[in-house]
Amino acid sequence: MKLNSLCSLTTGAAVHLTGQWTASPAKATQASELHVNAIDLLGASNATTYPLQKKFQTVEYLRTLPHLRARLPSNALLLRLRSRAIAHLTTFFASREFTQTHPPILTSSDCEGAGEVFGISTAAESPSDSSASAASGEPAAAPGSAAVPFFRTPKYLTVSSQLHLEALAQAVGGVWTLSPTFRAERSDTARHLSEFYMLEAEATFVSSLDEVMDLAEDMIRSVTRGLNDSTIGEEVLRGHRREGEEGIDLERRWKGILEGPWPRITYTEAIDALVASGEAFEHFPVWGAGLQAEHERFLAREVGKRGPVFVTKYPADIKPFYMLPSSTSRAGEDRQTVDCFDLLLPDVCEVAGGSLREHSLEPLQAAMRTHGVAEEGMEWYTDLRRWGSVPHGGFGVGFDRLLAYLGGVGNIREVVAFPRWVGRCEC
Amino acid sequence: MKLNSLCSLTTGAAVHLTGQWTASPAKATQASELHVNAIDLLGASNATTYPLQKKFQTVEYLRTLPHLRARLPSNALLLRLRSRAIAHLTTFFASREFTQTHPPILTSSDCEGAGEVFGISTAAESPSDSSASAASGEPAAAPGSAAVPFFRTPKYLTVSSQLHLEALAQAVGGVWTLSPTFRAERSDTARHLSEFYMLEAEATFVSSLDEVMDLAEDMIRSVTRGLNDSTIGEEVLRGHRREGEEGIDLERRWKGILEGPWPRITYTEAIDALVASGEAFEHFPVWGAGLQAEHERFLAREVGKRGPVFVTKYPADIKPFYMLPSSTSRAGEDRQTVDCFDLLLPDVCEVAGGSLREHSLEPLQAAMRTHGVAEEGMEWYTDLRRWGSVPHGGFGVGFDRLLAYLGGVGNIREVVAFPRWVGRCEC
Repeated sequence: MKLNSLCSLTTGAAVHLTGQWTASPAKATQASELHVNAIDLLGASNATTYPLQKKFQTVEYLRTLPHLRARLPSNALLLRLRSRAIAHLTTFFASREFTQTHPPILTSSDCEGAGEVFGISTAAESPSDSSASAASGEPAAAPGSAAVPFFRTPKYLTVSSQLHLEALAQAVGGVWTLSPTFRAERSDTARHLSEFYMLEAEATFVSSLDEVMDLAEDMIRSVTRGLNDSTIGEEVLRGHRREGEEGIDLERRWKGILEGPWPRITYTEAIDALVASGEAFEHFPVWGAGLQAEHERFLAREVGKRGPVFVTKYPADIKPFYMLPSSTSRAGEDRQTVDCFDLLLPDVCEVAGGSLREHSLEPLQAAMRTHGVAEEGMEWYTDLRRWGSVPHGGFGVGFDRLLAYLGGVGNIREVVAFPRWVGRCEC
Repeated sequence: MKLNSLCSLTTGAAVHLTGQWTASPAKATQASELHVNAIDLLGASNATTYPLQKKFQTVEYLRTLPHLRARLPSNALLLRLRSRAIAHLTTFFASREFTQTHPPILTSSDCEGAGEVFGISTAAESPSDSSASAASGEPAAAPGSAAVPFFRTPKYLTVSSQLHLEALAQAVGGVWTLSPTFRAERSDTARHLSEFYMLEAEATFVSSLDEVMDLAEDMIRSVTRGLNDSTIGEEVLRGHRREGEEGIDLERRWKGILEGPWPRITYTEAIDALVASGEAFEHFPVWGAGLQAEHERFLAREVGKRGPVFVTKYPADIKPFYMLPSSTSRAGEDRQTVDCFDLLLPDVCEVAGGSLREHSLEPLQAAMRTHGVAEEGMEWYTDLRRWGSVPHGGFGVGFDRLLAYLGGVGNIREVVAFPRWVGRCEC
C-alpha cells in the first residue's frame, strides 16, 4: 500500500481498491470486509472545499447542488428507484400488449386549456415576433418581417400527450408513454414542477370507466409489487426506517397500494361524505365546485383508509371538453357528470386522472363549443371521430409524485435529478 | 347478421365482430378464417371522404396525416418496432446494471456549441424581453421590467443530455437515457428532425475507448437480436420483401449488425484510405477537416462492407472541448487527436458518436479556453472534476435513425409518429 495515497483518502475522493473480500471477525455488525493491498487514487478531492460534508445537510441546501447530491446514498437510491420503476412499467405494459410511444413535445395546442404553457422561439427569430405570438396566439411573423419563423404558427411545450395518444390508440390499440411534460405555473409547492414526467396510457374498445381504473390500479400495483420484491425496495424501506422523513409511514404506504381493491366513490358521494363529516373545512364542499386539497386529504384518510382512493364522475362543467358524459347521472336532476376519475393518495393527493373520451363526432363538437374550445387547429382531433372511431379511454399519472410517494420523500424535487420550478433551473 | 350493418362496412369503419375462428378451405393462401355471426358498427366512416384510400399513397402525402397514417399496417408496424426496441434496450441496460435516468429538457447550456437551439418563453413575459434574451444571451428581464421572468436566465431545449449524464454517472456509475432532444437547424433532409430521440449512455471506471465502443456495439447488436428473434422482426422483414423501399437490402442490414465485430479504424487511417481510393469526391479528403457524407458513405461501403464501422480519434480541433486527448497521437507529428468515435451505418451515415471525457480539472479548463467555451455557467460541470472524478466515457445514438435503418425506410420522418422539422409541425 502506498502511503502517499493514504494521505489523499479524503472525503469525496474517487479510489480504486484491490484486496481480498473476507469474512469479518465483527460478525454482529458486518458480515464481510475488504482487506486492501493496493489503493489507486483516481480523482482527488479537497475535503475542506467539498460541498458534501459529512454532517446533516438540509434538502434545501442539497437542491442547490443537483450535480453533486446524487453522490449521497439516499439520493442515489432515489435515482435507482426511478430506474427500476421504469423497467417494471415497461414489463407491465408489454404484458398487456400496449405499444410504448413517443408523442411530440412541441405541439400546437394547449390540451387542458390551462393556459400556463411555455412557448418556443429560435435565436434567429426577430425579438418582437416570437414571444408576442406566444402571448397573443397570432402567427409568429408579421408580414414583411425580416425573419422567417421556424414554424408557421406558435408552438408550445406539451402539457399532456393525451390527444396524440388517442390518435395512435385508434391505430394500434393500447398505447402508453412516459414523457416530459411542462407547465409554466408559478407554483412553488412540494408537488409541482415546471418540467415533470407524465405516464400516460390510452386503451381502446373500452366500454366502462371501471376498465380504465382497473388498468391504472393494476399498473401501479404491479410496479409497486416489483419494487417491493426487489433489493431496491428493501433498501428504500430500510433506509426510511433508519433516517426517513418524520410523519411518513412508508411500509403502510406500500401496503396500502399492494392491498386492494382500492375504494371507488363518485364525486357526488364524496361531496355528501364531506358535508356529513362536520369537519371545519376552509372551503365548504359544494356540488359543482372542484375538490380542494383539504377535501382530497380527508377522502384519502377516511375513505381510502390511508391507501389510494378513486373519485369518479365529476361535474361536466369543471372538467375538460373531451370527457364522455355519464349515462348514469341522477334522473330528474340537472347535474350532468362525466365518466372520469381522479386517483388520490394520502399526503400527495391527486396522483392520476383519467376518463372515457367522447368518441362521437357531433357530441364532441358540441362539447368544444360549450367549453369554448375552437375547432380550428384541432381538426385532426375531431378527424379521429370522423372516420372509424372506437370507444376509448385512458389516464395520466404524475410519475414524479408517485415516486416521491413510494420513496418516502415529502417533496418531488428530491426524486427529480435536476428539478425546474419558477425561478429555479440550476445546472 | 344485421343487414343494415353490412351497408356500413366501409373503408375505415371500426367494427366489433363475433364468430368462429375455423380452419380455412383455401389452405394454400390462408390457414384460418373467421365465420362471422354478428357485426357491431362501433364507428362509421364515410368512405368517400376518408383520406386513406385503398390505393398507393406517397409517404409525402401520408406525412400530412400523421394522426391517421398509423392506421396503415406498415406505419403501425414501425410504431410497434419502436416499442419493442425500447423494451429490449431497457432489458439490455438493466443486465449491465446501468441506471435509467431522466436528465432535464430545459437547460442553460448549449452542450455542443452548435448554437442552433430553441429558447423558451412564457406568455406572461413581456414581448421584448424573453426572445431578445434568447437571441442575445442576456438575462430575460431588463431592470424595471413589468414582467418577472419565469427563470432568472435564458433557458433552452436540450441538445444533448451528456453533461448531465456525466454528473449522474459520477454518482451512481453507468447511466442511460432515451430522451427527446432538439435542434433548431433549418435542415430539410431525410435524416434530421427538430425534435428527435437520443439514446445516451455514460460509463464510469472506463480505461479505454474500446470499452465505450464495446458497450455501444453490444447494445445495438442486443436490441437487433431481440428484434430479429421476435414476431415484429419477422413482420418487418417479410413486409419489406413484399413492398419495401427499393434499393434497401434489409436482411443484409440486419445481418451486418448481428455479425461482428464491426471494423474500427482511426480517422487518420480513414483519410489515408479515402485519398488512396482515387475516388472523385466533391470534397477532397484532408487531414484536419471533418468527414463529409460522401466520405462516410465510402467508408461504410468499403470498410464496413455494408455493415457498421467505427471511425476513431478525430483531430481535437474539430471535436468538442470535453473529449480526452489521445495518448497515441503519432510521435513527431503535431496532429493532436481525441479519444472519440463516430459509428457509421451504410446509407444512414453517422448514427452514433462517443468519447472518453477529460476527467481532470486543469486540462478541462484549458480545453474550454482553447475552444472558446466560457466557464461561467458551467462551474457545475467543472465541479465534477474538482472533487473525486473518475475516468469515464459514453455515447449518443440517434434512436430514430437507428429505427429507420432497421425498419428499412429511407427517411426518419416515417419512424416518428408526429415528426417536426423546419416549417412543419402538424397536429
